[in-house]
This record gives sequence, C-alpha cells and structure tokens, in this order.
Amino acid sequence: MKLEIACIPGDGIGPEIVAQANKVLDQVAKKFGHEIERKEILMGGASIDVHGVPLTDEAIATAKAADAVLMGSIGGDTNTSPWYKLPPEKRPEAGLLKIRKALNLFANLRPAYLYPELAGACPLKEEISRAGFDMLIMRELTGGLYFGERHTTTENGVRKAVDTLTYTEEEIRRIAIKAFDVARKRKGKVTSVDKANVLDSSRLWRSVVEEVAKDYPDVELSHMLVDNCAMQLVKDPAQFDVILTENMFGDILSDEASMVTGSIGMLSSASLNDTKFGLYEPSHGSAPDIAGKDLANPIATVLSAAMMLRYTFDLDKEAEAVEEAVRKVLAEGYRTGDIMSEGCTLVGCSKMGDLLAERI
Amino acid sequence: MKLEIACIPGDGIGPEIVAQANKVLDQVAKKFGHEIERKEILMGGASIDVHGVPLTDEAIATAKAADAVLMGSIGGDTNTSPWYKLPPEKRPEAGLLKIRKALNLFANLRPAYLYPELAGACPLKEEISRAGFDMLIMRELTGGLYFGERHTTTENGVRKAVDTLTYTEEEIRRIAIKAFDVARKRKGKVTSVDKANVLDSSRLWRSVVEEVAKDYPDVELSHMLVDNCAMQLVKDPAQFDVILTENMFGDILSDEASMVTGSIGMLSSASLNDTKFGLYEPSHGSAPDIAGKDLANPIATVLSAAMMLRYTFDLDKEAEAVEEAVRKVLAEGYRTGDIMSEGCTLVGCSKMGDLLAERI
Ligand SMILES: CC(C)[C@H](C(=O)O)[C@@H](O)C(=O)O
Ligand SMILES: CC(C)[C@H](C(=O)O)[C@@H](O)C(=O)O
Repeated sequence: MKLEIACIPGDGIGPEIVAQANKVLDQVAKKFGHEIERKEILMGGASIDVHGVPLTDEAIATAKAADAVLMGSIGGDTNTSPWYKLPPEKRPEAGLLKIRKALNLFANLRPAYLYPELAGACPLKEEISRAGFDMLIMRELTGGLYFGERHTTTENGVRKAVDTLTYTEEEIRRIAIKAFDVARKRKGKVTSVDKANVLDSSRLWRSVVEEVAKDYPDVELSHMLVDNCAMQLVKDPAQFDVILTENMFGDILSDEASMVTGSIGMLSSASLNDTKFGLYEPSHGSAPDIAGKDLANPIATVLSAAMMLRYTFDLDKEAEAVEEAVRKVLAEGYRTGDIMSEGCTLVGCSKMGDLLAERI
Repeated sequence: MKLEIACIPGDGIGPEIVAQANKVLDQVAKKFGHEIERKEILMGGASIDVHGVPLTDEAIATAKAADAVLMGSIGGDTNTSPWYKLPPEKRPEAGLLKIRKALNLFANLRPAYLYPELAGACPLKEEISRAGFDMLIMRELTGGLYFGERHTTTENGVRKAVDTLTYTEEEIRRIAIKAFDVARKRKGKVTSVDKANVLDSSRLWRSVVEEVAKDYPDVELSHMLVDNCAMQLVKDPAQFDVILTENMFGDILSDEASMVTGSIGMLSSASLNDTKFGLYEPSHGSAPDIAGKDLANPIATVLSAAMMLRYTFDLDKEAEAVEEAVRKVLAEGYRTGDIMSEGCTLVGCSKMGDLLAERI
C-alpha cells in the first residue's frame, strides 16, 4: 500500500522527534511491504522564519493532498522568542489553529493512560494509581471560544476585549457521535463534561449529547460539570473511559489528565475529520529549552504514527507492531531523560528511535 | 463591636454547617465582648421552594444592609432535584450568580493548602506533597463568560448557542490590584493565568496585569497558560503563591487546587468587593447525598467565618482564635467522616461544632 504522508517537523524538539517516527515508519514499510511518500510542510515558527506567516495556503494544499499529516510540535518560548512580538494572527500557534480549521479536524482524540513500566512517574499516590487508568479525551477542536469572533475596542478611553463561544447542534452532534463510536470499542462509558449550570452553549451541548445517546443504548452516558471533572481527574481517574467535551474544557482537562499519568512524553493524539484523513501529533509541546540536544523523548510521536497507521490507513497489525516495539524497549529498560529512573539505561532521542525501529 | 451578619444556610448540608459556624461565632462574641446581630436569607433551592425564585430583591437588600454574609452552600442533585426542571435563570445557582453581581463581589479568594494533620488525604505522592504547599487562587468573579450575554436561537432548523466572554481593563485592573496586595502579605509571587495565545480577553488581561505589576516592584509576576497551569497544579503545587485568573479559569483551577490538597472539607473562601463587605462560604458544594444526616464537615464554613472576622471586621485576634481551635481539634484527633483516618475519633457535624466552640 502507498502511504502519502505530509510531515510537519515544526519548532523546538519537533524535527528530532518526527525524524524518529519516520525511522520507525520506514522500518514498518520495509517489513510489511508498503511504500511511503513524504512531503514536508513548514508550519509555526519554522514557516514564519521563511514565509513571514505561520502557515501558507500552499502548505494547506499539500496537507490536503496527503492521506495524513504527522506533526512534531509548534511554538517557542513566549517570553523570549521574536515570534511572539508579531501580531497574534501571525504567531506560531495561529498556524495550528488554521490547519485544524482548514482541514475540518473537529475531533481531537487524546488517550491518557498509566504505563505500567512508568507507574513510578505518576504524581498520584499508589493508593489511587494502583487501580490503573486508561481514558480518552474526545475534545471538540474547531468550534467554541478558540474559533469565535473576537475583538478589542476602546470606549471612552477604556479598553474592552470580547471573545465569543458558539456551538451549533451539528458541531456538537458530530463530535458526540465520534465519542460514542469510540466508547463502544472501549469500556462503553461516556462522561460528557460541560458547565450547564451557567452556559447556554453547555445546555445545548448536554441536550444534543442526550439525543445522540439514544442511538447507543449499549453505551453508558453521564454528565459532569467541568469544575468537578478537574477534581475527579485527580481524585479518581480510574472512573473515566471516554471524556467528551468542548474545545476549551478539552484543552485544559486533557493536559491535566496527561500530567496525572506522569507519562506526558508518551501520549499521542489524533485530530480527525469526517473522512479517513487525520493529523497526528504528540500531546506534549515543543520544549524549546532542550531542542536540538538529542534529549527529547520521541515515543509520543512514534505512538502518534501508530495511531495514523490505525485510523487513517486501517493498518492494525502495523500499528500493533509499533506499539509492541515501544513496550519492548521500555521492558528492556531504555529511557530518555524525562522518564529515567534508577536501574534503567539512559538514551538520547535518536538512539531511542534506532532501538524502536530495530524492534519492528 | 457589633457584627451585623446575614446568614444564608442554603441547600443540602448548608444549614448544618452554618449552624456550627454560628456556634463558634457566638463563642467568639462572648469571649471577646462583641455582639452579633443575625438576619437569615433564603437563597437557592430554599428560596425557590418558598418564593419560586432563587433570590428575591428583598433578600439582596437584607444582604446589602449587613456588614457581611456567611453562606453554607447552594444547589441540589442536578439529575434528580425538581429545581433543575426550571428554566436556567430560576435554578438555585442563578441566585448565587445574582448575589455576586448585585453586591459587586468581584474578588474571590480561595486558599488551598495542605494541612499537616491531613497530609495523608493528599492524593499526590509523598515526594510531591512533602514540600508542602500553600497557595491562594484570586478568581475574578463578576465578569467573563459566566456573566456575558448569551442566547440560543434556531436558524434554518438548526439550534445554535452563543456565550460571550467580555473583560474591560477596569475589571481586570481591580482584581489584579487585589492579587498583588495579597501577594505582598504572603510570599510575594503572582502567577497570572490566561490563554493569551488564543483569546483577545487574555491578551488584554496580560497587558493590564503587567501595568499593575509596575506598582509592585517587590512582587514577582509570571504568566502561565491555563492548560499548563492545570498540569503544574498536579506536578508541582509548591511553586505557587497567588494565582490570579479570570472567572471561568478560576472556577476550574480552584477546584482542581482544592482537590490536590486532599482537604476540600477544610477550605474556606471569601468574595469581596471594594469595601469591607464580603460573602464567606466553604469551597465545597452542598453534598445533597449526606444532607441532614449530621455527617458533614463544618470546618470549611467555620474557617470562612474566621476569614470574615479578619477581612470584614479586622478582628485578627478573633480570627486566629478560630483557626487555633481548628488546629487544636485536629491535633486532638477529632475527625468528620470525610477526613477520617485510622486512630482518630469520628465525630458528627454538630459535635465537631461543639468541640470547636469549646476551644475558643
Ligand atoms: C497551541 C494551542 C493553540 C493549542 C490549543 O489550545 O488548542 C494547544 O494547547 C493544544 O492543546 O493543542
Ligand atoms: C454554582 C456555580 C455557578 C459556581 C461557579 O462556577 O461560579 C460554583 O461552581 C463556584 O465555583 O462557586
């Protein structure tokens, strides 16, 4: 099979970690008899430096023409990087928001689970982490506050800023369907998170989710307020299977959930639209402080590539081979700095990529 | 001194816990020679049952006429209580939002700290909790998404809901000043939390906070994105002193922070305006499942009364006497069910109130 992949190395550690994922993918192609065709796309700071904007229309066209996009990470140090002197719509993150919208990537899947081998890195007490946990945050990614109209004006000398949070029932329905579909393949539980005691958008959210639930009598639905969810993720993460929520709540809760696992260098994500197309990226950021030092952990990106094999290309066996390679390397005691612990073998980013590719 | 206090027992465990705080306050008055004049106010479900609305104008007038308001908790089980069949603006929580706005209570102070005696209840690993932590969330309480215009419409048969997030520089400045003032009396650190990489309101927030910071060269200011803050609260809560943030982020982060302490039954809060007036309430909710069973922990409400003595009445010695009584009772091993552990003595809500009052 021919896999047409657009790669966005991006900023910070992005290029290093994408290079390792590509090593692993090349090995998969070799072993399973596939052919990979790659196009590289500039985005974020890397694009600003060349084109003056974080994403060109040409880059979007290249992404659209591919089957899937594999991304590293975007952005720099907001306090020191010159990119953050630019007007907001020209900064690195604007490229990320733009590509999500342009490719209609409304469904962001962020798995958060405890790696048995890395249980020691979990910030929670053993009493809580013992139960293990394995959830998936289904975040709506192209609506709500992050894509609403916004403006800053000055009235009688007083500055005033307005952002708007809009959801239509169609936007809610399509992401809810994704959540219920995924829950069916997992533990059959959806927790829909909102602030229905205050927001109109949350009340609409809740009622549309309940409509969708009727088509999934085999999936158990419950509702939780966002403030309570922020507590429950710390108190008892094992209670969750699929968390379904809107863009901003999903941004906050998925980061909290990934930190709760203690394995943020290991967590992948997929951003999907209504076709097989997807953009795959690690859950973590661009870590400009360690960029270019061969210190980054490429595993989240490698696992994002595995998600790509599974969701876009339906290559389940190949995806499993990648996930198995990760398990093996961890079981053999290899660790990058962020997940290092006593008795393990410390390796750099590139070496970790080699080890993973060798185990395919 | 004469203390004119309006009491809002509210719903669920509210009446029980407020009764204990009143016991303690009566003892303080007796010992220190003050006089307390109380008026009771119905709010939330309790008001709906009598007046059909969660807060009457008369109730607001009574609150305004008092020096301070002591509140229990508001609301019931959203799945089963008939209050939640009412239109949104008639539900219990609408009363809470209305009183905050009517009394201009724009500054919500939520301390979150680890009680040494209750360190065992902290959900974090000893490695992290060992350092101890003691932060205060300064949440803007009368602006932003929770008070913006909202509406739900149907266009071409498709429902659409809109909420708006508005901040003026004046609203930001006055809460920032409160945060810097408080930080000065604490560890001198303000972490301002926003989503300035996406929202206009956050960018205005950041620039106004920076302007205010110029008047406080002795206070250290840093900015943090809300998604990162949700992670840092779990990873390293000891890094924080004062967290300054807008209404919705504050709602989510303050609940997360209080759960991280493991002592949510112990955490008080104050909602202040520009005068000495304040509304004081526990950080936790109305726990309808244990209401009326003498099982609730009244300590958060008792400590909220201590905040009232300190902030509204400038009665520092009296406030300390209350806080000291809490420390003593804990040191003597008395616990309500929520904080019970081996070797301690289990007591009910009312007994805990008696024990605290006796130690004043
Ligand atoms: C960079 C930023 C705009 C982005 C977001 O909040 O969507 C990021 O935090 C993420 O979660 O992918
Ligand atoms: C009841 C609700 C409206 C309220 C809020 O979110 O402000 C509560 O969660 C709080 O934090 O005081």
